[in-house]
Amino acid sequence: MSETRYDWLADRWVIFAPNRSKRPDEFIGRTTVDVPPDFVCPFCAGNERLTPNPVLVLPAPNRHSRRWQVRVVPNKFPALIPISEAAYRSPIDALASSLAERASTGTATLATPEASVMFQSEIFHGAHEVIIESAEHRSSLTELTESNAAYVFAAIRSRLIHWRAHDSLRYAVAFKNVGTEAGASLSHSHSQLIATSFVPPDVVRSCRRLEEYEDAHGRPYFEELIQRELEMDERTIFESENFVAVAPFASPVPYFMWLMPKKRQSRFEELSDEGLREFTQITRRMVKSLERLLPNASYNFVLHTSPFDAQRDDVFHWRMELFPRLTKSAGFEWGSECFINPVMPEQAARSLQEALGIERRARSSCA
Amino acid sequence: MSETRYDWLADRWVIFAPNRSKRPDEFIGRTTVDVPPDFVCPFCAGNERLTPNPVLVLPAPNRHSRRWQVRVVPNKFPALIPISEAAYRSPIDALASSLAERASTGTATLATPEASVMFQSEIFHGAHEVIIESAEHRSSLTELTESNAAYVFAAIRSRLIHWRAHDSLRYAVAFKNVGTEAGASLSHSHSQLIATSFVPPDVVRSCRRLEEYEDAHGRPYFEELIQRELEMDERTIFESENFVAVAPFASPVPYFMWLMPKKRQSRFEELSDEGLREFTQITRRMVKSLERLLPNASYNFVLHTSPFDAQRDDVFHWRMELFPRLTKSAGFEWGSECFINPVMPEQAARSLQEALGIERRARSSCA
Repeated sequence: MSETRYDWLADRWVIFAPNRSKRPDEFIGRTTVDVPPDFVCPFCAGNERLTPNPVLVLPAPNRHSRRWQVRVVPNKFPALIPISEAAYRSPIDALASSLAERASTGTATLATPEASVMFQSEIFHGAHEVIIESAEHRSSLTELTESNAAYVFAAIRSRLIHWRAHDSLRYAVAFKNVGTEAGASLSHSHSQLIATSFVPPDVVRSCRRLEEYEDAHGRPYFEELIQRELEMDERTIFESENFVAVAPFASPVPYFMWLMPKKRQSRFEELSDEGLREFTQITRRMVKSLERLLPNASYNFVLHTSPFDAQRDDVFHWRMELFPRLTKSAGFEWGSECFINPVMPEQAARSLQEALGIERRARSSCA
Repeated sequence: MSETRYDWLADRWVIFAPNRSKRPDEFIGRTTVDVPPDFVCPFCAGNERLTPNPVLVLPAPNRHSRRWQVRVVPNKFPALIPISEAAYRSPIDALASSLAERASTGTATLATPEASVMFQSEIFHGAHEVIIESAEHRSSLTELTESNAAYVFAAIRSRLIHWRAHDSLRYAVAFKNVGTEAGASLSHSHSQLIATSFVPPDVVRSCRRLEEYEDAHGRPYFEELIQRELEMDERTIFESENFVAVAPFASPVPYFMWLMPKKRQSRFEELSDEGLREFTQITRRMVKSLERLLPNASYNFVLHTSPFDAQRDDVFHWRMELFPRLTKSAGFEWGSECFINPVMPEQAARSLQEALGIERRARSSCA
């Protein structure tokens, strides 16, 4: 059976091909990860000198302890030019400055309209921070205490609020890479935040689609979706009072999950302390289900929140995407932007529930 | 230095961050690939019984030889339901048929407009074929003879012509996955072709952008681009009489290349025999440069050709994308659809040329 499902929000097709997992595989692929004996973890307590000065430190709950619990530092190898440097330009920044001027006039190497379409470059400033999630060398959110884990999301909330107040920044994404397949280069549990002075075109497009849906149907897309998912109960994995974890109908990769509030909230950073605790619980539960179902699998989470300067402030529904890295995107996916997913989301939801020992509710008889 | 470049055609930003390659890496990542001792390669001559019956066989040039040179077979584990089965539905296909009917009425589980937006699924038919590139166990296009390699592209051309004539198919992509990082499961040199009954939305969007460009500027986008790239000579890697290899201005990943005809041709399958030979030469040269620069790196190629039923038949410019798989897309890329590329394309072009022993032409003095 091969069914193709349309991901309306992302405007792409996902081909479900469960038979593809039966392919013979000549390669017994095994990524061996050796840690060099002399490697010193820059994120462990005691090695703070190896990271830049922190921008946020959440102390341990015991007020007599000199220990910290969560520590946020600028990324030593930022993807974007740090915004803090933008105000001041030393002579060393001569190159940056000349390029920035070139960018500000909207031209690149050749000053013609065609060239400006083809060779448009900008010097964007931004923020790139690392959220060090524990003073001890822990490698998973599930190894932290409940309150330590909640501090991680509190730190993300705090940094989103901080950067949102910055006039020149327009968008931020918080994310976590665990394992080499997910792009991680260090094992000490950490997440990251990148704030940018531009809104990625893809994000603009999905905001526009959410607006269109709501204008046409008179109801927010995600609220409608969540209600129907709960009614059908085929792809819901877990539900708490205010949050839900779902394997989306057109999941691009196996065991892909959305974790989100049931009622629309456009910004993660507006989550209350109570909401933060509940969200931490559901997140740890879903990470645990992944870890049980797929031991040692690499995974990512990506926290989508509304662009800072969204024209319609109420249209976004913040959510976390959580997914293991099992499949490699191959030539077809690259060429067509269609994903081929060998695991149906209904099956994924069942397996993730089983890993948590959740028994499925009796299905209602009407389909 | 961190420069962000706009990929006009794909409508996305690529962040160039050469400093990111200096990150400390705790993991000495090493993917060991063991071939099980009892593995029988289904693509080697003599094992033809292990694959479905061929749809195309290109014989060896020596007419006394009983050997074949290139063999095209249906994929045993197709991503889409084979089109040949579509005409006839046996009782076994009851499920497929009922789902297809559901899909044809445009509804999914719940027959309301909202549900049809959220839960739209289709049973798409298509073709998924494997081009076995050699009778011997070779693992690279560069290990084949020149004429054998040209037969590979002749086979792709032939299959594109075949499927294009099929009324219900609208789009095809030919691609090659080499190495586990690129999604390959077998080492015997092969490429694949997938033809679909839908045009991926992403392809529709880029066609529209090519049209817009041409309407606004009175000249095809790629012809203009190629002329400027050749003039600037900063990112061109190799040029033959009718083809050019370029490291695109906003390359999403390191050492990404475009191989394309200098003059617009919308369909790869309309390439002449002579053009095919010249294209084979430039492709092998570029694969060789990758193999020398990055021994054992996984790589993909993706051959983009015009959708079969393009409204404006003349707008597409067929091209091959060739790129090694060195970086892992991490949470940020997933969340923002922005790529972070640690290698500037100008540097990539120089390195790829050096690997081929090409000396750069003297640059003109004006920038």
